[in-house]
Amino acid sequence: MKIILEPRAMQGLADEVRSRAGRIAFVPTMGFLHEGHLSLMREGKKRADTLVVSIFVNPTQFGPQEDLDAYPRDFDRDESLMREVGVDVVFYPTDKDMYPKGYQTYLTVEEVTRNLCGKSRPTHFRGVATVVTKLFHIIKPHVALFGSKDFQQLVVIRRMVEDLNMDIEIVGCPIVREPDGLAMSSRNKYLSEDDRKEALAIKEALDRARELYRNGERDARALVEEAHRILDLHPGIRIDYVSLCDAGTLSDIETIRAESVMAIAAFVGKTRLIDNCVFLAPDEEAI
Amino acid sequence: MKIILEPRAMQGLADEVRSRAGRIAFVPTMGFLHEGHLSLMREGKKRADTLVVSIFVNPTQFGPQEDLDAYPRDFDRDESLMREVGVDVVFYPTDKDMYPKGYQTYLTVEEVTRNLCGKSRPTHFRGVATVVTKLFHIIKPHVALFGSKDFQQLVVIRRMVEDLNMDIEIVGCPIVREPDGLAMSSRNKYLSEDDRKEALAIKEALDRARELYRNGERDARALVEEAHRILDLHPGIRIDYVSLCDAGTLSDIETIRAESVMAIAAFVGKTRLIDNCVFLAPDEEAI
Repeated sequence: MKIILEPRAMQGLADEVRSRAGRIAFVPTMGFLHEGHLSLMREGKKRADTLVVSIFVNPTQFGPQEDLDAYPRDFDRDESLMREVGVDVVFYPTDKDMYPKGYQTYLTVEEVTRNLCGKSRPTHFRGVATVVTKLFHIIKPHVALFGSKDFQQLVVIRRMVEDLNMDIEIVGCPIVREPDGLAMSSRNKYLSEDDRKEALAIKEALDRARELYRNGERDARALVEEAHRILDLHPGIRIDYVSLCDAGTLSDIETIRAESVMAIAAFVGKTRLIDNCVFLAPDEEAI
Repeated sequence: MKIILEPRAMQGLADEVRSRAGRIAFVPTMGFLHEGHLSLMREGKKRADTLVVSIFVNPTQFGPQEDLDAYPRDFDRDESLMREVGVDVVFYPTDKDMYPKGYQTYLTVEEVTRNLCGKSRPTHFRGVATVVTKLFHIIKPHVALFGSKDFQQLVVIRRMVEDLNMDIEIVGCPIVREPDGLAMSSRNKYLSEDDRKEALAIKEALDRARELYRNGERDARALVEEAHRILDLHPGIRIDYVSLCDAGTLSDIETIRAESVMAIAAFVGKTRLIDNCVFLAPDEEAI
């Protein structure tokens, strides 16, 4: 497993792989890896002969009041996990190499960033789109893999790739959960023991909404209200949003007609968690 | 000479060239070609084995009150000029293929777009950066060539390429002028016979500033005022800006210490023309 720190060196390696008709799969991460990340890597290995993982806690996707400095880091642990999975190359740049003095170029994806996390984190997706574009240009992948827990991120990346004619296949992979149902996240590390129990209400709210949907409920407000009711039973939870929106445009909907997603963001103690559940279109959902 | 209309087909051709270790040079244009464009193409041919030229009047770089609809077009003429020069591939997409329904992704380059043309054309460089990025992803060039008449555009592209780690060499080529000194531009076609004479004052103002600079003047305001004085002698000319700025940051300067540029934008009749003159740093300028 090679560890590469500099963008130019990484581009050189990518050119070398491509010049021998090799195929590059790429999994971008902010490190502090969990089973969710590892599932992306395993899927990546199936889809290419060279698997590149980046570890970079990207400052431009954190707001001024957010947890950039506290974000958990443990490169040694990450390194041994990546070796186990069979990662070929780790791209592990410094902030200074990614955003040198005078840096001033940003990407914005407009409509799909207005709702959900875009509301409470107004510059977040600008940072995500920008760093992913940089990483794509540095790593030159044929295929890139993203988790579905960050559902809006996946929609933003797909939209950006299509709009900007990036010749890269984007693969969304299923949410990986703890045995009790909590969606895996590096931020789960922040949770106290009590927080950890409260956090389960998020999955409970999603499951209950899904159950109602499968029982025939098509009124989005009814599903959102039921999810609110469940979350409100937990005093340790402060809702950021519960939203039922079109899975493509991420606009709120009134009635479920096409593929849609219930997305929840909530603070558990000081930790902001997100989770979601996709509802297939009524005529496709197995009931 | 192949003419390709669809982005996917162009990417396929680019992949084919790259898979046989071929080198791609790219000249983006809005068509209605003149000797300035052709000089870029000739330079491109020297630097690669496959020369791709795009012809696309990009709607996103025109403001709502600007000349998008009137912009001159003549593909048949362009085609024969490109054949003469030996262009290998023409990429000639439709608006709909470049900006399909739902399009929503844009690039912004911040500091270097605030001055000069960025002031009077606030969304122009966003459109330029966006379309050039799309074209880079479609044509996959090793080297791309831009004229220096659009000096700010060249600075914006260089900054964007560096910031976003695009692995593409950017080559700036000298301004090509008519025998009487007017910088070549597709928009010169708009000029009436009287306009055409008045337009020469722009080059005259730049030449006079350069003369003063070579005679030792280092005060930017003195040079700008002299250029204003010359332009103001021509009632057919309405100045948009006369600016003396650092050639890298494009910020206005007071005293010429490093490489700098005098840039002029002016309306001649209804036609907005731009031109510029680079002054090397005082210790590098041959006097």
